[in-house]
Amino acid sequence: MMSVSSMPHSKPALLISIPEGVIDLGWGHPSPRLHPTEDLRRAAEIALADGSPIPLQYGATQGYGPLLHLLAEFLSAQPAYPGGVSPDELFLTAGASQAIDHATTLFTQAGDTVFVEEPTYYLIQNIFEDHGLNVVGVPTDADGLLPNALESMLQSPDTPHPKMLYIIPTYQNPSGSVLPPGRRRRIVELAQRYGFLTLADEVYHLLYYGEPPPPPIASFDDSESGCVISLGSFSKILGPGLRTGWIQARPQIIQRFANAGLTVSGGGLSHFTSTLVHAVIEQGMLGDNIAVLRRAYGERVKAMSAALRDSMGDAVEFTEPGGGYFFWLTLTDGTNTDELLPIAQECGVNYRPGTAFSASGAFANAIRLAFALYEPDTLAEGVRRIAKAHSAMRA
Amino acid sequence: MMSVSSMPHSKPALLISIPEGVIDLGWGHPSPRLHPTEDLRRAAEIALADGSPIPLQYGATQGYGPLLHLLAEFLSAQPAYPGGVSPDELFLTAGASQAIDHATTLFTQAGDTVFVEEPTYYLIQNIFEDHGLNVVGVPTDADGLLPNALESMLQSPDTPHPKMLYIIPTYQNPSGSVLPPGRRRRIVELAQRYGFLTLADEVYHLLYYGEPPPPPIASFDDSESGCVISLGSFSKILGPGLRTGWIQARPQIIQRFANAGLTVSGGGLSHFTSTLVHAVIEQGMLGDNIAVLRRAYGERVKAMSAALRDSMGDAVEFTEPGGGYFFWLTLTDGTNTDELLPIAQECGVNYRPGTAFSASGAFANAIRLAFALYEPDTLAEGVRRIAKAHSAMRA
Repeated sequence: MMSVSSMPHSKPALLISIPEGVIDLGWGHPSPRLHPTEDLRRAAEIALADGSPIPLQYGATQGYGPLLHLLAEFLSAQPAYPGGVSPDELFLTAGASQAIDHATTLFTQAGDTVFVEEPTYYLIQNIFEDHGLNVVGVPTDADGLLPNALESMLQSPDTPHPKMLYIIPTYQNPSGSVLPPGRRRRIVELAQRYGFLTLADEVYHLLYYGEPPPPPIASFDDSESGCVISLGSFSKILGPGLRTGWIQARPQIIQRFANAGLTVSGGGLSHFTSTLVHAVIEQGMLGDNIAVLRRAYGERVKAMSAALRDSMGDAVEFTEPGGGYFFWLTLTDGTNTDELLPIAQECGVNYRPGTAFSASGAFANAIRLAFALYEPDTLAEGVRRIAKAHSAMRA
Repeated sequence: MMSVSSMPHSKPALLISIPEGVIDLGWGHPSPRLHPTEDLRRAAEIALADGSPIPLQYGATQGYGPLLHLLAEFLSAQPAYPGGVSPDELFLTAGASQAIDHATTLFTQAGDTVFVEEPTYYLIQNIFEDHGLNVVGVPTDADGLLPNALESMLQSPDTPHPKMLYIIPTYQNPSGSVLPPGRRRRIVELAQRYGFLTLADEVYHLLYYGEPPPPPIASFDDSESGCVISLGSFSKILGPGLRTGWIQARPQIIQRFANAGLTVSGGGLSHFTSTLVHAVIEQGMLGDNIAVLRRAYGERVKAMSAALRDSMGDAVEFTEPGGGYFFWLTLTDGTNTDELLPIAQECGVNYRPGTAFSASGAFANAIRLAFALYEPDTLAEGVRRIAKAHSAMRA
């Protein structure tokens, strides 16, 4: 018999593994139960029928043409895309992270400055640091980035001029905020006037649980050469394993991606999976899946809201998110959530503390809770455990 | 009825489209006829059976664990990998082009110098230019890169010190040359001594039509921190549309990729397709497919060799390639192949002229012919058309 120590080490299949018994509200990952695996199986059957050579050959540089057309049609039919989208404004990516990495290669150099929201997506800094960028935070309020604060920084001789602004306008990660149309327009005007690229991570744009959000920020860019990139993704509306998404931008920017060295050498960045996504949309399965997700995640928002009010009451302040994956809580008694974390973990719950989302260590009293991974009952139990940890810490 | 001018513009599905009647020997693309579409259909059925949530969830950062183990086992059983490969030495990429782009991000900065072979892959310069690198050619002979010339350049105060050497050791693109084991060892020693990274594009390593080539150059790297990256790919042995490949390197380098911002943010770079490739290997279909490709491409090498001897005789010099996709011809009468090209195109054939593979405009009498896309008869007809154009030019 093989002893444990001589057994080959087994490498994980997935990005995260959560210990039995722990409720991990730290991960912004979708529910495995909600993955439309059967839809993808049908799509694969369609795309790979009759020995078609298309899915396995090198794909077109802008992306799989039939999907560009169908995606433009699909998006243009959505209330969240009131201005419509043309295929000339789309480029198929290997997911938003790949698109951010690629945009950073094409539009910045080591030593350049990138502005981000304060708070922002906690893993973005690593990507920018891999490119040698200097990351500077811009203040936000409950409606997202503050255009006046941004303009002051752009005018200040003490702040290095940014090549790029990275922003999450809709159901912001972590805060859940939605940038109003007026601010979107102001930011695009500033990008045009001060000559920086706005890289907008809008992967939650179609995941709204009530009214649709304002149009993607790329829709506000009417410049000839383009100064805004809106990133969309099938990660949140089909499955992140597909590593397939899109860029929406002015045609000149789209052509910069289509003519990039990476793209011209390897062809379409997500060609095989794009042929499957094409079949998913054509069969009406994407619209159906988004409807399923909206219903399920909408219920989870309600469940988490209720649990927070029931278990924590006045101890937390939050705005119920209108979409996306996250609640952003502030502990009203000033509890330091980095210090609370090990106690919460002892109680069998995990979360992402506020300081993780700040380049300057701000938001020490904040917590990000992800609600996409668990069913309503488990979310409520997770919140009760945080409440228990919070009481224990104050005792 | 819709007039042609009002019809929506249709975007292409694939990277290339060849006009009817033209034999295009310029593209290093595999034969659509040989794509194992049915194998992938079966693989998708297996990977997506029973509603498995695995393929659609975020994948592990180093790559889909079961594929890392199975690929290590598969490669270690190949005569072309005599030293074996461990899962700790593998990282799953989104294809060789993506891996080159990512390595360039992680190990260089704008203004750095990268050495390449002279001649080299004609699309690599675009990737390096997107990163602001300075590209410098190193001389080669019929056995590939000349280590003595490389060492002289490393010692010369007139040549900027390289951060990276990009090299195609096996069935070189375009020359078809195979770097002997002694040169591989010398280059790795130079990389260790002079502190540069050797980025080896070894995507043709398993496509040999006679004896297997020497081991991948990463196998010669015994340094602790690692100084060689060997790039493998499923593009040439399954299908380029999959955008899935691997890096073979020392574990410290593997971990640098697994911990990169891009990877940690998006998870495994080719997760969904990796679950399909896993099923392909597990079912024995990869080994079978490589055997089919070796047989078919081996026949094409013979056909093209015979056609070149029959139609062009002493007008061309070449070495019959032992693997890969390419013949590299030199026109013995000094014909300028850039000038020959439009005449060849009038004769209904296309090729890639030698100067495309040189940073300095060398190889003006050379031609690269790709034999992977067409059947033997068509290859022979293509060669006859080049011979006709050559005669016409001299007349």
